[in-house]
Formats: sequence, structure tokens, C-alpha cells
Amino acid sequence: MHMHTEETALLGTASMDLHILDHRLRVTSICKNGLVNFTHPLIKLIFLRNRTRCKFFSLTETPENYTVVLDEEGFKELQPSEHLKVESSIWLPLNVVSNGNSSSSSQAVGVTKIAKSVIAPLAQQHVSVFMLSTYQTDFILVREKDLSVVIQTLEEEFNIYKEVGGESVPMHCQEVSNGLQKNGKEAIQPTVHPVLIPQNQFCVMSLDPDTLPSIATTLIDVLFYSNCPKEDAQSSPNQDLDCIKFFSFSLIDGYISLVMDTEAQRQFPADLLFTSSSGELWRMVRIGGQPLGFGEATFF
Amino acid sequence: MHMHTEETALLGTASMDLHILDHRLRVTSICKNGLVNFTHPLIKLIFLRNRTRCKFFSLTETPENYTVVLDEEGFKELQPSEHLKVESSIWLPLNVVSNGNSSSSSQAVGVTKIAKSVIAPLAQQHVSVFMLSTYQTDFILVREKDLSVVIQTLEEEFNIYKEVGGESVPMHCQEVSNGLQKNGKEAIQPTVHPVLIPQNQFCVMSLDPDTLPSIATTLIDVLFYSNCPKEDAQSSPNQDLDCIKFFSFSLIDGYISLVMDTEAQRQFPADLLFTSSSGELWRMVRIGGQPLGFGEATFF
Repeated sequence: MHMHTEETALLGTASMDLHILDHRLRVTSICKNGLVNFTHPLIKLIFLRNRTRCKFFSLTETPENYTVVLDEEGFKELQPSEHLKVESSIWLPLNVVSNGNSSSSSQAVGVTKIAKSVIAPLAQQHVSVFMLSTYQTDFILVREKDLSVVIQTLEEEFNIYKEVGGESVPMHCQEVSNGLQKNGKEAIQPTVHPVLIPQNQFCVMSLDPDTLPSIATTLIDVLFYSNCPKEDAQSSPNQDLDCIKFFSFSLIDGYISLVMDTEAQRQFPADLLFTSSSGELWRMVRIGGQPLGFGEATFF
Repeated sequence: MHMHTEETALLGTASMDLHILDHRLRVTSICKNGLVNFTHPLIKLIFLRNRTRCKFFSLTETPENYTVVLDEEGFKELQPSEHLKVESSIWLPLNVVSNGNSSSSSQAVGVTKIAKSVIAPLAQQHVSVFMLSTYQTDFILVREKDLSVVIQTLEEEFNIYKEVGGESVPMHCQEVSNGLQKNGKEAIQPTVHPVLIPQNQFCVMSLDPDTLPSIATTLIDVLFYSNCPKEDAQSSPNQDLDCIKFFSFSLIDGYISLVMDTEAQRQFPADLLFTSSSGELWRMVRIGGQPLGFGEATFF
């Protein structure tokens, strides 16, 4: 998750690359009281890397449910259940990087820029996106069936690459379009949603995967037992109605990312988790009092 | 678990105390493929001490099932299920200590002595016992309904105390007998069981409860996932037919005990688990090719 005030200036002289990453993802949700039935596979996916081939895993607790985004290897671990809802599509993660012409280093691009240059044009084409923000980057998930429209829509502004077995292969519209036309360009009716800004502040952190075992019991406690009563404590101030329950863990291509509020952060050892150098805290903007569907919890 | 060749000599001049401990226990078993359904409560009972009032918890993997012995606070965490068998009785743990006359220090007594002075006399009275051996001591579990017979049978050789709220209260037969008679004294028909001695060697270890989080992921892996295929390894030599699957974890009154074979031990960091000073390894004697019921896996 990147948010730099100088990004517009920086990007003025840079070209932008859009990478279609080499993961095929499922978007699922587990209802709050159904999580106990998925403790076994989720702990395996989070902590036992040598027991699974899953390379893309994200678990997010929202006020409504647990959203789990994971590749097909990980998805195999989740048994069908009345507590598990599975979005029927295959989703592909996209990644936007700014590629300075005078330098070989690429740089992640912030969500403001992504909203303007990716999400808005795709919305014009009625293409839904699912944003997944981590410490390392922001993933834009699109449905596989929308890929040709995505490429058609974005290829004017982006150099588009498909990651295949670690290689970036340049990609062009005609390779995927198969005669598909862009969706019709009717303007979208603007919908007015109430905007809620919860009181709690969030931090976006990472840690060395080799130190993950050191925080295992704390992470398990927060993820799987935070809705159980604690025998030795009074109720947490986080049950305040003005606060929002949001906690996210992701393990993607070997990189760990954690998003939690400052209340949850206090339970973790301070020396293992690292945040960006500025140590900035975030506020969440919830759009709409009712869930808008998967991924409605967006950071700005 | 104590086994000293000199114990008979030592005990010649010592009196023996039998303590009825202040726990009311349930003896349950979970079938092998049902364990996934109990991951959530078991991880809570093992790792999250501040979320439970359970003070007596033992989980043992045997070749047939998982045997879980726990107090009523812990038992509340286990939801009824077709995968969970519950022995209907309440069991009480007994503890034998040798109380040297010339010293105030008490000493745990080994299983050989227990077999001779406790189990054999109780067997004469048709009282079943369940042995639970830990690093710290050996518990003899008896059914609560057998308690008066137990006291009648053992009070000649033992000073019997009941632990009540941390105090040891001397106890005598008349306080519990309520007119009950000793069971009839018919001799038990000896049954000849084949004796099996598996090839693997076992160690009995402990660790500081404060360092339990450091081995959490390894312990979770061994307890909950050792029957899943590993993606990055060939089959373990422990799947050898001459070896036996046996792993035990107990957390009783704040003390942790682990019994595992040398194959499992290699997965744990060597610097955290400690064994008795002699570092002795144990062989298991299995009596009977078929399970004899709960607690048939006995160490000698």
C-alpha cells in the first residue's frame, strides 16, 4: 500500500507497466461463526509452507465475514460447507509498476493513481475489480473472463506483460481478444453512498517469513479466537461501536503482509513486525452502511 | 515418569502418600480422521491459556485414535460429534509420593512400584485404572464412583490425602464409604496377551510454558498435520510397520510434558525441550495386538 503525495510528479516522466501475475485465484467468504470449521486448513495455509503448494493466500476479517482469496492449490484445502461462499469466477491479480525511463528500477504505484488510471477506466467498461492491498504492493484482481476487455481498455496507457513461470511476456490485445468487443460505453449512473469513517487507526506491516513462528500463537489468537470471551480480561475498547473490526493477513509469493488496528498491534512483539519507515497510521473509509460485496473495505 | 533401579531400597524406609488431586476429569477419544473438526478447541486448550480455565489437559496420539483427558472446564470446549467418544465416568487423578521419614522432601514414585502397590491391589478389586505418565509424574486415574473402594483397598499401605483448594486434607475410608463394601475378592483370571515391542525409541521431555509459543508451529504440525502428505518430503521412515505412532502432549497445573519418538524429536529445536539429566530413551511395550481400551499404551 503506497500513498505518496509526490507520485503524480514522479509518474509524469515514467511509463507504466501492468503485470498480469501468474496466479489463478478464487474469492471466497466464510461466515463469522463458521470460522471454527476452517481452522485446520487455514492454519496449514498460514503457517505450514512445506505442507502446501499454495503461493497466494489472503485472509481478511471484516465486520461481516472472513474474506479468503487464494490460488487453486489453496482452494483445494477448503472443504465445501454451508459456511463457505465461493465466488464462481477465476480472478487474476494485476500489478501496476511505474517504470522510470532513465532507470531500470521499477516502483509500485499508489492506490490513488490506480483508482484514476485502472479502476475508473475499467468501471466505464463495467468491469468489476477487487482491490487487495498489502505491505508490498496493491493487487488489482479482475475476472479471467474480463481479461480481454481489461487489456483493450488499458493498453493505451500501459505496457502490459503476462508473468509466465517467472518471465514477463509482453502482451497485446489481439492475443486475447478472440473477436470480443469492448463492453458498451454507457456512462455509469452515479450512486450516492453514505461514507463512514471508523475511529480506529490501522497500520500496515510485514515480517520476515522465517520469524512467522515467533508470532504464531498471537496471530492464531487474534485471527481465530478474538470473538471468544477472554477468561482473564474485561471487554476490549475495540468493541466500541465507532470502531471497525478489520484484520488482514496475506502470504503471497513468500511475502507476508499484515493490516491491523493499533489495538491488535499491541498484542504483537514490537521487535518483529516492521512498518514503512514513516510508521504512518491509516484511517479507513467505509463506503455505504451495508456491504457492497467483496472488497468493500477500501483504504484511502 | 520415573524409573530408578534403587527405588525399592529407598522406599524400604519411607512411608508412601497417595494424593487424590483436585481435578475432575473426562476421558475421551477422537477418531483419526475426525481430528480436523477439533483443531479449534484443541489449539485453544494447548496454546491459549488466558482463554480457558482448563487446568488439566492431555492429548495423546496412539495408533488407533487421539485420546484426550481433560477437566470439565476443558471438556466444555469439545462439541458433541460423531467423531468424539466420551467415557461416561468422571475420573479422579491420584498421585503417589514417597515421603522419607527423615526428610520433608517428597519424591515421585516410579511405575514399577505403582504397578505393584496400587494397580495390582485395585485390579484384585476389579477397579480399572487409567495411567497417564508425564515428565513430572505418573497419574493414576480412577473412576469417581470407585473412590471408596480405592481408599479401602489402599489405606493400609498409604497415607491418603485429598487435595482441596491447594491444601492436603488427610482422608479415611469411613469418610467416603457410605456403607459400600469392598468388591468381592475373586481372583482375576489371567489373560495371556501377545506382547509387541515397537522399534522406535521414545523420549519424555518438558519445556518452560513461557517458551511454548516458540515451538507452536512445530507442535501444531506434528499434532494436527503429521498424517497429511508433505509436499516437499519423501515418506518418513516412521511409517515403518515395526514403528508405532505415539505422541503425547500434556499441560497439567501449568506443567508441560511431551512424549515423542526420536523421529518426531528431530523436528523440534534442541535447545528448548529438556529431558531428564540422563537423557534416557524408552521403548514401548504394547500388550495385545488389539486395543485393550483407553490407556493400553503403557510404558515399562
